[in-house]
Amino acid sequence: MKKIAVFTSGGDAPGMNACVRAVVRTAIYNGVEVMGIIRGYKGMIEGDFVKLDSYSVSNIIQKGGTILKSARCDEFRSKEWRQVAYDKVMDAGIEGMVAIGGNGTFTGADLFLQDFNIPTIGCPGTIDNDLYGTDYTIGYDTAVNTALDAIDKIRDTADSHDRVFFVEVMGRDAGYIAIQCGIGGGAELVMVPENPDSFESVIDTLKNGRENKKTSAMVVVAEGEELGNANVIAQKAKEALPHMDIRVTNLGHIQRGGAPTALDRILASRMGMAAVEGLLAGRKSEMVGIINDQVAYTPFADAIHKKKPLNKELIKMVNILSI
Amino acid sequence: MKKIAVFTSGGDAPGMNACVRAVVRTAIYNGVEVMGIIRGYKGMIEGDFVKLDSYSVSNIIQKGGTILKSARCDEFRSKEWRQVAYDKVMDAGIEGMVAIGGNGTFTGADLFLQDFNIPTIGCPGTIDNDLYGTDYTIGYDTAVNTALDAIDKIRDTADSHDRVFFVEVMGRDAGYIAIQCGIGGGAELVMVPENPDSFESVIDTLKNGRENKKTSAMVVVAEGEELGNANVIAQKAKEALPHMDIRVTNLGHIQRGGAPTALDRILASRMGMAAVEGLLAGRKSEMVGIINDQVAYTPFADAIHKKKPLNKELIKMVNILSI
Amino acid sequence: MKKIAVFTSGGDAPGMNACVRAVVRTAIYNGVEVMGIIRGYKGMIEGDFVKLDSYSVSNIIQKGGTILKSARCDEFRSKEWRQVAYDKVMDAGIEGMVAIGGNGTFTGADLFLQDFNIPTIGCPGTIDNDLYGTDYTIGYDTAVNTALDAIDKIRDTADSHDRVFFVEVMGRDAGYIAIQCGIGGGAELVMVPENPDSFESVIDTLKNGRENKKTSAMVVVAEGEELGNANVIAQKAKEALPHMDIRVTNLGHIQRGGAPTALDRILASRMGMAAVEGLLAGRKSEMVGIINDQVAYTPFADAIHKKKPLNKELIKMVNILSI
Amino acid sequence: MKKIAVFTSGGDAPGMNACVRAVVRTAIYNGVEVMGIIRGYKGMIEGDFVKLDSYSVSNIIQKGGTILKSARCDEFRSKEWRQVAYDKVMDAGIEGMVAIGGNGTFTGADLFLQDFNIPTIGCPGTIDNDLYGTDYTIGYDTAVNTALDAIDKIRDTADSHDRVFFVEVMGRDAGYIAIQCGIGGGAELVMVPENPDSFESVIDTLKNGRENKKTSAMVVVAEGEELGNANVIAQKAKEALPHMDIRVTNLGHIQRGGAPTALDRILASRMGMAAVEGLLAGRKSEMVGIINDQVAYTPFADAIHKKKPLNKELIKMVNILSI
Repeated sequence: MKKIAVFTSGGDAPGMNACVRAVVRTAIYNGVEVMGIIRGYKGMIEGDFVKLDSYSVSNIIQKGGTILKSARCDEFRSKEWRQVAYDKVMDAGIEGMVAIGGNGTFTGADLFLQDFNIPTIGCPGTIDNDLYGTDYTIGYDTAVNTALDAIDKIRDTADSHDRVFFVEVMGRDAGYIAIQCGIGGGAELVMVPENPDSFESVIDTLKNGRENKKTSAMVVVAEGEELGNANVIAQKAKEALPHMDIRVTNLGHIQRGGAPTALDRILASRMGMAAVEGLLAGRKSEMVGIINDQVAYTPFADAIHKKKPLNKELIKMVNILSI
Repeated sequence: MKKIAVFTSGGDAPGMNACVRAVVRTAIYNGVEVMGIIRGYKGMIEGDFVKLDSYSVSNIIQKGGTILKSARCDEFRSKEWRQVAYDKVMDAGIEGMVAIGGNGTFTGADLFLQDFNIPTIGCPGTIDNDLYGTDYTIGYDTAVNTALDAIDKIRDTADSHDRVFFVEVMGRDAGYIAIQCGIGGGAELVMVPENPDSFESVIDTLKNGRENKKTSAMVVVAEGEELGNANVIAQKAKEALPHMDIRVTNLGHIQRGGAPTALDRILASRMGMAAVEGLLAGRKSEMVGIINDQVAYTPFADAIHKKKPLNKELIKMVNILSI
Repeated sequence: MKKIAVFTSGGDAPGMNACVRAVVRTAIYNGVEVMGIIRGYKGMIEGDFVKLDSYSVSNIIQKGGTILKSARCDEFRSKEWRQVAYDKVMDAGIEGMVAIGGNGTFTGADLFLQDFNIPTIGCPGTIDNDLYGTDYTIGYDTAVNTALDAIDKIRDTADSHDRVFFVEVMGRDAGYIAIQCGIGGGAELVMVPENPDSFESVIDTLKNGRENKKTSAMVVVAEGEELGNANVIAQKAKEALPHMDIRVTNLGHIQRGGAPTALDRILASRMGMAAVEGLLAGRKSEMVGIINDQVAYTPFADAIHKKKPLNKELIKMVNILSI
Repeated sequence: MKKIAVFTSGGDAPGMNACVRAVVRTAIYNGVEVMGIIRGYKGMIEGDFVKLDSYSVSNIIQKGGTILKSARCDEFRSKEWRQVAYDKVMDAGIEGMVAIGGNGTFTGADLFLQDFNIPTIGCPGTIDNDLYGTDYTIGYDTAVNTALDAIDKIRDTADSHDRVFFVEVMGRDAGYIAIQCGIGGGAELVMVPENPDSFESVIDTLKNGRENKKTSAMVVVAEGEELGNANVIAQKAKEALPHMDIRVTNLGHIQRGGAPTALDRILASRMGMAAVEGLLAGRKSEMVGIINDQVAYTPFADAIHKKKPLNKELIKMVNILSI
């Protein structure tokens, strides 16, 4: 393999740049040339490629976002457009690819491989941590710490005014971010899609807290919570508890940005390196993961379709530690 | 004067604790005893007072929120309840007060003084910076930096996805926070209540940016913007610019919390000290401010009713610096 | 078991408070009373105990340092003083203990147990991550991120002035902090005690970097590096490379403080909880750890004497990723 | 004026990039072309110029360091080399210059102007805040906040271990950084070159603190302190107070880096804009400053030679507020 490409796709995540850097430098170290594809599959169809040398990825390890940009690309679902992309890739002499992204990214890569048999290794880049085949995804630790810092700040004002705050965090269908920053933020309650919540238990928790000298409370609500979003739940809580001063904050897109944490930089660096080493060793259609601190490769089909379970012990912890 | 009280009231602001600390220690340094009133006027009516010694304010200079808590107190608007409060204050032997808060706080203090002639000095504690008689209010610099940090993070993801973000920041009727973090965040546009905006100019700015190679854009919207909140404006922008990927984030209550910046700690310390020194020198019914780096005292009536103008030069700057 | 004690000992680490909170609340949840021992073994000898209820550990999860304080206590090495401590512990009705600290802490606990058979479970609290029996120690992730943030800042000025920086980080005899923030900070070289370094290779790396368009460089030196401290190495480098502008920074005690990261808060919470559950289940003389995301108990003797190996793959990574 | 140049020189300071951005965009807005000179006077002699368009300064407002780099240049002290520089500047068609830096930078600019009458406006970029003619210099607020954050962290560990810390901060001959982060950090003592300190008063302060229930203490020492550096003073304190656990930390170069604060970004933007507007209005050989929130121009001779006094009231504050 003489030339490979790297691209980012799907929602951006802090650490993607650290991963790109590792891909580029590991390839160069192994005598392989690297092209960056701009805006993922969109750039692939448009032939928007740039040569990446060692210097072009210097001083990006600490940067949020992705220097290769990301974009939606519905066209890639059709075979015709994938053919266009393939032609561009062939014209550029690209023999293998590293795809950094989430579920949708790997689905695209898998289709592309089935069509044209071009070897691709995926790196899990998503703040949601919802991918099977790795303990952590790139960006997750940073997003958790960003959300936690926000919760610490909200706690200051909640305490000062004896308020109840419902804080909505990202995570799509997964409660990872919510459970981590719920425990880390000392939340009284964490509502995640993996665990059935009842509205009554929300009310009970808030009432009990008041009886136990707690004058303020924090409820972390995962984006995918089945009882509704934070606004909906808070509205019902206000009706049930008219004497409490209840507020809502949706942390929003700040969770996607910022300099990656140490964990994310190292995770991303290891994954980028392992992706290239995997490609050079003949692997394809697999996602790199780190499981129990060891590099592991998981077939795209499993990474996409298997469900990574949330540690239920953590939900129990919230109840015990917030008494 | 042998004994004074200090309390915080209105929305909490980072630096209030630094101010409380300065009040307590300056008083003790001058041989005056200090009581803390819990939850502002509410605690005054309830007689919820605690003695504060030097040690009780140690290690709080860096803490967000207010250890004295804050609360709404509609009762204080009626003379009957103010009489109750006055009796509690007299029972406790309190001869003067330092009130840390905003407009509503000083209005209450002014009424109280008119009723009972108890000397009170105010310290401007509000993130909104909307008080006449001081260049900066306590908490403003911290709120601006918190909002700016959030905007930096949002910029990461906006750039990665070529998106336009409308970011709503706090400030009530004043555009101070918006203009500062708009300039600091390199925003393409800042919409503040002090400056008439037209929806057309929003659209023009976004279109022009696209023509000038800008693939992403940031519009900072002040809470009090007369064209509507960020959601409303963004919705109209989406209709006018269907090809742009437009998103909205409301930064919310994170802007109220967090460790105060150096500027806020020093400002709050100077003001707390000057408040006590003012009381001891016989001042009353005035707000402490820092104007051109000098302590200044402004009558409550002026602080409450006069309007501090926003530097219009700063609005012009946004246009020039975002080309 | 009706009453237990908790204490912190050895160098403080961010997350110790989160651990104390988890111990207290898990005990109370299980109907067990908790005493806090102030200043570790010193306070044990002096009988400096305070009752801890659920409320006394509220709002400490995010605080650096340790509310129970820590201190050296050479007396505890002698049986006589341990007898004094034991009497105080018995007088207080304490039936089991949770010791949060490092090697020295557990050595003391082990001696104490051999003397008097009082059940003790340890929680690994040290920024150095040098304890066998757990993947992470409490405080390590925070220290790494603090050091990394400092390195990012130093990189700004190194780049601006084309300088070489030798940055010394903590870690005692272990290179964990150094290797993590070396990779995360994009260092050109990381010098750790686990890996024999030669002064020649330092010079070669710096020379090669210059030849590869790198105008600045960062060398992370672990506290325990066998070639000497950062000052010594930098001094020799200055002599060998007189044309380079070489500087030294020792990050020092900032690495011990600050709000713990999400990882440290959750780790500490899990460990505190597992320590109490272990005590209640009849365990003693063991250290709680988290290995592969599962709670694990390791005999003190192993935790103290066995050596946790540094992942040598990481050292290799530095060389590849900094080309 | 059709073409100007901008450069940074002397020690780098956070906010220099925000200033460069403002210079470039204000010039372009006014129809003037801009060249960036790389590495200050060194690059001027070497003719190392790059054209800067609006896009080339996008997304740098939040970056520490300087994209134009900085370097020492002893040659510029001789007329011969200044002649070389002048020829390069003429060849490039440069008619005016904006110099961002400190004392040495403006001295060079003044010499250059005397030789060749090329109009130059200076922007005060130094973390030391030691320039006459402006309330704040670019980078100062960021450096203070960085040092303060470090002091907060050190306070955590100082409190946990009942230690006394001597913390040395930057500032060259000026005590600005020290006094600000001393007050902001709640230091027991601040030692600055502007105020004569006696070793005896250091010892007294530490002893008195112990008597007043303070178990830990923080002494901030300015780089230019006349009693010696933090190590020297701490060593003497150890001898005089053998029962105290005394430690030293020198914050070092972290104070030069990092994303600039809001204040620094806005200050730098205003100054960069005013520098170009000044040049276009025919000004030369002056430094832009912001005094009482208004733009002010000060002749280089005054900026270089006049001394900006330290507000002595602040030193008094430390004593009162740390009781």
